[in-house]
Amino acid sequence: MTDVLRYRPTAAELSYTFGGREPVARIKSGDILDTYTEDCFGGVVRGVGDLPSQVCEFPYLNPVTGPFFVEGAEPGDTLALHFVSITPARDWAVSSTFPHFGALTATHTTAMLHEPLEERVWVYEIDKADKLVRYAARNSDFTVDLPLDPMHGTVGVAPGAFEARMTIVPDAHGGNMDTPELRAGTTVYFGVNVPGALFALGDGHARQGQGEVSGVAVEAAMDTVVAVELIKGVATPTPRLETDDHLMSAGSARPLEDAFRMSQHDLVTWVADAGKLDVLDSYQLISQAGEAPVGNVCDANYTMVAKVAKRYLPTVDMYQGAHARLRALADSYR
Amino acid sequence: MTDVLRYRPTAAELSYTFGGREPVARIKSGDILDTYTEDCFGGVVRGVGDLPSQVCEFPYLNPVTGPFFVEGAEPGDTLALHFVSITPARDWAVSSTFPHFGALTATHTTAMLHEPLEERVWVYEIDKADKLVRYAARNSDFTVDLPLDPMHGTVGVAPGAFEARMTIVPDAHGGNMDTPELRAGTTVYFGVNVPGALFALGDGHARQGQGEVSGVAVEAAMDTVVAVELIKGVATPTPRLETDDHLMSAGSARPLEDAFRMSQHDLVTWVADAGKLDVLDSYQLISQAGEAPVGNVCDANYTMVAKVAKRYLPTVDMYQGAHARLRALADSYR
Amino acid sequence: MTDVLRYRPTAAELSYTFGGREPVARIKSGDILDTYTEDCFGGVVRGVGDLPSQVCEFPYLNPVTGPFFVEGAEPGDTLALHFVSITPARDWAVSSTFPHFGALTATHTTAMLHEPLEERVWVYEIDKADKLVRYAARNSDFTVDLPLDPMHGTVGVAPGAFEARMTIVPDAHGGNMDTPELRAGTTVYFGVNVPGALFALGDGHARQGQGEVSGVAVEAAMDTVVAVELIKGVATPTPRLETDDHLMSAGSARPLEDAFRMSQHDLVTWVADAGKLDVLDSYQLISQAGEAPVGNVCDANYTMVAKVAKRYLPTVDMYQGAHARLRALADSYR
Amino acid sequence: MTDVLRYRPTAAELSYTFGGREPVARIKSGDILDTYTEDCFGGVVRGVGDLPSQVCEFPYLNPVTGPFFVEGAEPGDTLALHFVSITPARDWAVSSTFPHFGALTATHTTAMLHEPLEERVWVYEIDKADKLVRYAARNSDFTVDLPLDPMHGTVGVAPGAFEARMTIVPDAHGGNMDTPELRAGTTVYFGVNVPGALFALGDGHARQGQGEVSGVAVEAAMDTVVAVELIKGVATPTPRLETDDHLMSAGSARPLEDAFRMSQHDLVTWVADAGKLDVLDSYQLISQAGEAPVGNVCDANYTMVAKVAKRYLPTVDMYQGAHARLRALADSYR
Repeated sequence: MTDVLRYRPTAAELSYTFGGREPVARIKSGDILDTYTEDCFGGVVRGVGDLPSQVCEFPYLNPVTGPFFVEGAEPGDTLALHFVSITPARDWAVSSTFPHFGALTATHTTAMLHEPLEERVWVYEIDKADKLVRYAARNSDFTVDLPLDPMHGTVGVAPGAFEARMTIVPDAHGGNMDTPELRAGTTVYFGVNVPGALFALGDGHARQGQGEVSGVAVEAAMDTVVAVELIKGVATPTPRLETDDHLMSAGSARPLEDAFRMSQHDLVTWVADAGKLDVLDSYQLISQAGEAPVGNVCDANYTMVAKVAKRYLPTVDMYQGAHARLRALADSYR
Repeated sequence: MTDVLRYRPTAAELSYTFGGREPVARIKSGDILDTYTEDCFGGVVRGVGDLPSQVCEFPYLNPVTGPFFVEGAEPGDTLALHFVSITPARDWAVSSTFPHFGALTATHTTAMLHEPLEERVWVYEIDKADKLVRYAARNSDFTVDLPLDPMHGTVGVAPGAFEARMTIVPDAHGGNMDTPELRAGTTVYFGVNVPGALFALGDGHARQGQGEVSGVAVEAAMDTVVAVELIKGVATPTPRLETDDHLMSAGSARPLEDAFRMSQHDLVTWVADAGKLDVLDSYQLISQAGEAPVGNVCDANYTMVAKVAKRYLPTVDMYQGAHARLRALADSYR
Repeated sequence: MTDVLRYRPTAAELSYTFGGREPVARIKSGDILDTYTEDCFGGVVRGVGDLPSQVCEFPYLNPVTGPFFVEGAEPGDTLALHFVSITPARDWAVSSTFPHFGALTATHTTAMLHEPLEERVWVYEIDKADKLVRYAARNSDFTVDLPLDPMHGTVGVAPGAFEARMTIVPDAHGGNMDTPELRAGTTVYFGVNVPGALFALGDGHARQGQGEVSGVAVEAAMDTVVAVELIKGVATPTPRLETDDHLMSAGSARPLEDAFRMSQHDLVTWVADAGKLDVLDSYQLISQAGEAPVGNVCDANYTMVAKVAKRYLPTVDMYQGAHARLRALADSYR
Repeated sequence: MTDVLRYRPTAAELSYTFGGREPVARIKSGDILDTYTEDCFGGVVRGVGDLPSQVCEFPYLNPVTGPFFVEGAEPGDTLALHFVSITPARDWAVSSTFPHFGALTATHTTAMLHEPLEERVWVYEIDKADKLVRYAARNSDFTVDLPLDPMHGTVGVAPGAFEARMTIVPDAHGGNMDTPELRAGTTVYFGVNVPGALFALGDGHARQGQGEVSGVAVEAAMDTVVAVELIKGVATPTPRLETDDHLMSAGSARPLEDAFRMSQHDLVTWVADAGKLDVLDSYQLISQAGEAPVGNVCDANYTMVAKVAKRYLPTVDMYQGAHARLRALADSYR
């Protein structure tokens, strides 16, 4: 029996870590979560005069909705979250530069003696009917419509080893992976580290480029629907994604080649295991048939995704068919 | 007046560096080169028993055809090479693992105490009619057809500063970038460093995955046609690519985030300059509209490509319309 | 009035994170802590047959003693810990290889397809009288005495932003920096992130080489005495160290050049600020007079230290003379 | 019979690459070279108004003296160069910042949108009698004497594989390693890649800090004496250094952890091989007894050195006692 959990957080209920927080609600495998997520600025950057470094207060950045306690989830299980729909909650979104944050600027870790780049805000109009977001240059009159492609930058579970991590950090528990692959129609799998899994999500993007070069996407509050399945007794070492057509593994680390290695290593061994291929045969197949969509190259860890079309693989039935089941559940809800 | 230079190298004429070699032929702007490139193993890996580390001899790896002297090319100019066609010269191709080479193995530089992974060869059938390459597992009977997608892993000009570089190294002069974006229909631009530019090409791939994870693609000898244009007085800092629909910049460096930074930095500043956008406005636009296809994560330098669809840009006329002209020249040749 | 807090933890009181734990005791500025730390294996690796991966259980690794609540410490303050003495608590210590951990092996993040290196344990005799540790090869009869040079691999405070981090991670809050500079006679400064600072320490090493190449030092339980001072209203961005002769800044990040940048950036700006030098003048001075002792190149973040002799600096009085005061306090205790 | 080759280059004879150049002179094993090297700026930066980017012309930077052809040297041999003396040729030296060069600035490869830091020159007085160099701040009146510690930043042989490399690049052939360990009393070993070895040297530093943070040391022209020995039939994979007390291996790569890995890997396997230790026993010994002095973190490749005191090793006789022989030869010359 599918229940629908409708949950809209108050500002005070927002969370800024994965781990270290009490759940805001409970949900069971087979249920649907219908919720709302605030944007990465907590909704306070609303115009070009709202400089994030002035209107936001560290560490109250990148709020997530949750965590949600999944009934029966135990360490060693896998949590599958299928994104049924991700819909911008407003008719605008924002982006910005942020002092010493992004791929083409000195940062806290890539520490240099440069002054920060100019902090600047861009406001995007969202046209949900035509599925467009409108970019407008700040220092000239150039504008252009880009495809609306809603996704969540941040989704994950509580980490293990008694840790609590800022929501802006991506790691084995998920978190701020900032991959455009996390859109509606995608199932994401996480290894469960603590009882109840304690998943949370946020950081909606109306769209983003690969790598999130400037460090900030087209940031948007979202109305989001997620279908939930708990897969007992199956472990997942790093976040994995599945669509109707593709399998993916995400790796988050620095330097970027390690994120690449982690993602490719997981996909190679996952395919080998599930497809009954010798590991080197899988390595060879992924080397010729695989893709490597970049997630983020700006966060505390960088994220790379390894991706392969299912049609190139031996018959595989990942997670006992969870994606197909969740897809059907999603269809029944719409 | 377009001339066609037909050149098929003897084994002794193959080159193993960019720079440090006399030209094999001369060509002028507006001409077409119709040539042949040997595969990265020099054609000696022909079956699963031909282990590359045994049948190949360092440094006689990754031969290129050339260099070609472009009449009138001087440092500070740009050489545009348009790939008219890239056609596998045989009905088979090969791939392999290679000791201590690839992204998921200890290497010479990522030095570790592990023994090398098993060296293994895969032979692919090429079906040019149906545009397929057939993968066959070595340790099981799984086979699958992958799309034929011919490209050149290695193309470039002589480097500056009196350097000569092994053909397996990608850098500002091009070289072994191993990006699948270098297929027929693409124009690639190189800054000229020495009189005559001295371009060369090789390392054909019947296809490769993004990142060339195992270090070796589906390696194939190629019959290749290139249209040549010299753009006087315009410098190019890093290899750039153009298709009918996209602009791209390639960056080659380690760690991988630096290759990413170089490629994105060049694309951001190139678009800003050509599109009369403020640099931060360009940074913002590329951040939301850009792609970042991975080239290689296995060579002496890693290669990333920054890519954006022209339809999202202000009206731009790159290199005085060279791509359109070369496209027309290519059409006239077919 | 100096009080001495004598605290010896039970096994159940050991902590495995910085942050997320209640304090085990309270201490005030000007007091001395006389305590005991277990080794990184929790004391269960006692002979060459005790393979760590078999006798230890994740995440119960690298236990620290604490956390200690410092009266009056608030975010924005600095905590100074002066190591009065660090004395091996036993007459032996151990080291090992550990599967997929260390600088010369594939790891979880530098993910590769290699099997782990052999797991092997070395037992060292400690001669406290002659200040020696005795290395003995496992596969031959070679032995050699190395200088005893006791230090703590792990010391830090609770992180900010509601985080809790495994004790094996070094970051801005300190943690598992694994620098041989953390020996008796050194004062270490940490920025306070939470009320009470909540410092903890552990992971004693009878000695270690620079970089801790194999990932495991000469691991020893320690009897350690620390003098504590709270410096109100002075912030510290990254762990800093001071001895009678040197100033040091520690940076922890990946890749290793970022740890280097962070440490050098902090030292350059710290010296500029305290010594009333222009930043570029400080950059120049550190560039010619500075040292860069490697901490670890094996942990979740790598640690580099930037170091300069005080005799090369303008007259500087760091932290209002805290080191000299703590030094005197230490002398009074011995 | 020891001959002394006295060679003082004209400006036109200076070389800007390793490889790709004809030898300037020939020398035989057992001989002594008494020569002069110009500073990295070619001697044209002589005062604070001489900004390097204005008075120097790329690629005429970092000139080396040589190359010298060593009689009988063949690929597979090892060339040993013992630095008998390194003496500043003038009573002044210079340093500077340089646009987009150095560890704490955006660079060509760590590409960012920042403007370059201010370009500034510092002139150092050299006091050879008291063995001091005097630093003087530019924006205040602070001055300090630092120890004179002359060294060569650049020394190497021609690379293999038909390559020619700019002198500013360090790699397996040596080059611009910029390690302070390369001082008088040190023997450096290079694998020979081409007939005659073709060694060259330059880039004297009156002193430098570890890491050469700003990218430029205390740059000085040098009068340098080198004793030469050719070791037939013994290969050397990466530059190695030997003093009376220490063995060292140098690794040059990016990211910095790879330079660390290469240097440690070579030292571990070199000691294992020469000392008849099992590789893991050597790994363990180096992990506890080793040092890791940083070379440069600013050049095209970064350089790390792995170092261990001979007194901690099994009796080893490296390169058939070459260092001791060269030491004796050096003594006979002084």
